[in-house]
Amino acid sequence: MVKIILNGCNGKMGKVVRSLAEKYSNLSVVAGIDRKSGQGQGVFPVFDNIRRCSVKADVILDFSRPDAMDSLIDYGKEKNIGVIFCTTGYSEEQIEKMKEASKFIPVFRSANMSIGINVINKILKDISAFLYKNFDIEIIEKHHNQKVDAPSGTALMLGNTIRDSIKENIDFVNGREGIRKRAHNEIGIHSVRGGSIVGEHEVIFAGQGETIEIKHTAISREVFAVGALKACEFMSGRKNGLYSMDNLIS
Amino acid sequence: MVKIILNGCNGKMGKVVRSLAEKYSNLSVVAGIDRKSGQGQGVFPVFDNIRRCSVKADVILDFSRPDAMDSLIDYGKEKNIGVIFCTTGYSEEQIEKMKEASKFIPVFRSANMSIGINVINKILKDISAFLYKNFDIEIIEKHHNQKVDAPSGTALMLGNTIRDSIKENIDFVNGREGIRKRAHNEIGIHSVRGGSIVGEHEVIFAGQGETIEIKHTAISREVFAVGALKACEFMSGRKNGLYSMDNLIS
Amino acid sequence: MVKIILNGCNGKMGKVVRSLAEKYSNLSVVAGIDRKSGQGQGVFPVFDNIRRCSVKADVILDFSRPDAMDSLIDYGKEKNIGVIFCTTGYSEEQIEKMKEASKFIPVFRSANMSIGINVINKILKDISAFLYKNFDIEIIEKHHNQKVDAPSGTALMLGNTIRDSIKENIDFVNGREGIRKRAHNEIGIHSVRGGSIVGEHEVIFAGQGETIEIKHTAISREVFAVGALKACEFMSGRKNGLYSMDNLIS
Amino acid sequence: MVKIILNGCNGKMGKVVRSLAEKYSNLSVVAGIDRKSGQGQGVFPVFDNIRRCSVKADVILDFSRPDAMDSLIDYGKEKNIGVIFCTTGYSEEQIEKMKEASKFIPVFRSANMSIGINVINKILKDISAFLYKNFDIEIIEKHHNQKVDAPSGTALMLGNTIRDSIKENIDFVNGREGIRKRAHNEIGIHSVRGGSIVGEHEVIFAGQGETIEIKHTAISREVFAVGALKACEFMSGRKNGLYSMDNLIS
Repeated sequence: MVKIILNGCNGKMGKVVRSLAEKYSNLSVVAGIDRKSGQGQGVFPVFDNIRRCSVKADVILDFSRPDAMDSLIDYGKEKNIGVIFCTTGYSEEQIEKMKEASKFIPVFRSANMSIGINVINKILKDISAFLYKNFDIEIIEKHHNQKVDAPSGTALMLGNTIRDSIKENIDFVNGREGIRKRAHNEIGIHSVRGGSIVGEHEVIFAGQGETIEIKHTAISREVFAVGALKACEFMSGRKNGLYSMDNLIS
Repeated sequence: MVKIILNGCNGKMGKVVRSLAEKYSNLSVVAGIDRKSGQGQGVFPVFDNIRRCSVKADVILDFSRPDAMDSLIDYGKEKNIGVIFCTTGYSEEQIEKMKEASKFIPVFRSANMSIGINVINKILKDISAFLYKNFDIEIIEKHHNQKVDAPSGTALMLGNTIRDSIKENIDFVNGREGIRKRAHNEIGIHSVRGGSIVGEHEVIFAGQGETIEIKHTAISREVFAVGALKACEFMSGRKNGLYSMDNLIS
Repeated sequence: MVKIILNGCNGKMGKVVRSLAEKYSNLSVVAGIDRKSGQGQGVFPVFDNIRRCSVKADVILDFSRPDAMDSLIDYGKEKNIGVIFCTTGYSEEQIEKMKEASKFIPVFRSANMSIGINVINKILKDISAFLYKNFDIEIIEKHHNQKVDAPSGTALMLGNTIRDSIKENIDFVNGREGIRKRAHNEIGIHSVRGGSIVGEHEVIFAGQGETIEIKHTAISREVFAVGALKACEFMSGRKNGLYSMDNLIS
Repeated sequence: MVKIILNGCNGKMGKVVRSLAEKYSNLSVVAGIDRKSGQGQGVFPVFDNIRRCSVKADVILDFSRPDAMDSLIDYGKEKNIGVIFCTTGYSEEQIEKMKEASKFIPVFRSANMSIGINVINKILKDISAFLYKNFDIEIIEKHHNQKVDAPSGTALMLGNTIRDSIKENIDFVNGREGIRKRAHNEIGIHSVRGGSIVGEHEVIFAGQGETIEIKHTAISREVFAVGALKACEFMSGRKNGLYSMDNLIS
């Protein structure tokens, strides 16, 4: 039984993690941390600061904000347990601190906690350089009409993975208009926005007489909670070091 | 048996029409017109100018160039048979001449001879105004890497059909980049280019909790020949007037 | 402001309707009916039987069970307001009773409350007979791995719509195996099951050189609540008669 | 410049290979073998039997029939050049002979010459065992209405690759009908047939809250010629041994 301290237990993702964790027999949220009060109390104790938490646990799972990082690392070191960071928006300096901390405790960080996206990212590492010789590459991503940024962070992550694999000068092109032939070294990235689409990412390899399409569809936020709980399992009792979804899926 | 004079019989599309027509028992190419010599001779006589053609026919099918229009109309009037124009790039003046000619003979013209695209165009006329109230609309089109223009003419045709149906101020947006929320009155048009994709057009209606996608895929050039031969059947013996794929599919 | 009595307000769909209705300014749930106690109380009164409800309203919206029908019709007649039935599983006899009731009050019933599915159903009525002449028709539906029946009720509804339009002898074929060529008068229906897919329905028209695909994706249960609230708006103040989503979307 | 003897140069695929090869500057068909006479003569000499061919070449490319195998191997041994077999339908005994021959000359054989399908096959080897723990797996394949067998050979190849990777008892299920929940260890294989679809294969991994779809679309027969010419390049000057598309794409 992996015992989890859930930081940010009353946030949107925190609630999803809690309700999902109840369905697992080998995992249990034993304490929650949140500045907001919520419904956790009763099932497990909720503290407004991790320093007040005296419940014995195997890992800390974080779905809060980057500024919680220091206190979580301090607590992890003190109790000798690992920390799983599922938040984005860390500064370079903070990422450096995580690396440093990973010498003393196991640390896990991933920009996208979905298993599927990380599996696709790994596939792209394996096949992009080879396919690029004969295939043009395009990315389509689709999100709801409230998303403010385009392209999505995940589309850029996938695009960068492809670019890094190819080891040539690749240009990202966001949409096309007018009279101009496609250059082979461009990757078109197309951002569809509409309705309440949760999140779709599709990479198209278009060759002579054939296409390969690799597509990920997020059905609900639960997918990130699934990945996070997988990471808790994976990190429990692990030795010191810096881990990511790449370790989990290989 | 519908007897067809095929203008442009040795061009790319002319060849496709000829080999397809052989499979039909109720249609027959009885004469070809082409400035280029080719393989038609033998199966049917080929003339370098329609004025030299004395073969009795029911319709003239044109897959050549806009500048052939006048001679075809003259011939149609003389023999009292209809003309089916499958070429694009006519001037306003030429289109006016076609209308005028349609008082004396049946005339057919369509910018896209595929039955499927025209069925979709008709669906869009029927549903766009209603769906626009609750759905965001986006278009994705995909073509091979040699296509020089973006968006495709067909994507614009579909977009214009949607815009005309909605009767509100609609903006076309070709790709997205940066920080900006989608406005409801924009239609995103995304032009994917790669490999040897023949032609795909997809209209997405994205609403609250659901999406509708309507997609056309051209598998080969044959699809335009199929539509042209349907038009020949449809136009044989028809009374004077101006016709389009809309008449054929309704 | 359309005032709604929500029957089944503490059920799965009842909760979705309530939380969605809060976002509408022109609609309001003014009373709930449910045998189960729940969280409604406070925002609006909840009664365990509609006969105890004295709150003035414009329509009754039902997301409960078929056996609630009689009491809802009686209440509707007494108060002279319409009833919207969003449940499935009615007997022939019950459907007859609804028709009878619709002489005295406006009655709305639909097997699938999603606007999108009903728009697609209407498209299929319009195009199937014409396309059948030249296109083969196939249906793919995808649902989560807990769904026990195949094909889905909605796939059968769409299939029946196509069959009724074509007015020829059509066979449904559920999967293919072995050595046998496809007959033109068969419609293949393919039931994909896996993971937590909410619900996808796709009709494929496959012709010579082209395909048309019409696809619906349900993103979440909310889609049925959206349709139900649309129906409330539509039915408020409507004259007596039997209505369905077909009326709403035309 | 890789010099190719093309066996079956006047067959359907032979013609595609010839017209494609003309576009490559580093490859050249220097002789053709075919029992049928055809248009090759002039561009390169055509022989009705490989024994009569005295043109110096680097590889033999075969798109004919299994019964040509012996003579090609004999010729390859005599001239000390490799043979690329792109035909299917070999007996166990013949495959054994190829292995034996590969001790003396380089031999290449693949059931599907498309690069894309083979890349997908390799991806499936890499990810299926891992994903199977949390994802259900389904395959959809689509082909034209003249195809007599279902499922397609390629769908079975992909299914077998998945099954072999998982190393558990997996059942293939061809279509679903009636009341029964999906078992995790079944792979649904769905065979869509219609119109002139060239060939599509899609593997769906459906998990909790997400799906991964990996799809291959064949646009035209050319795709197999592209793979065959890649194989010629790859095999020219290669040392003795048995090779397949797996070697070419890794």
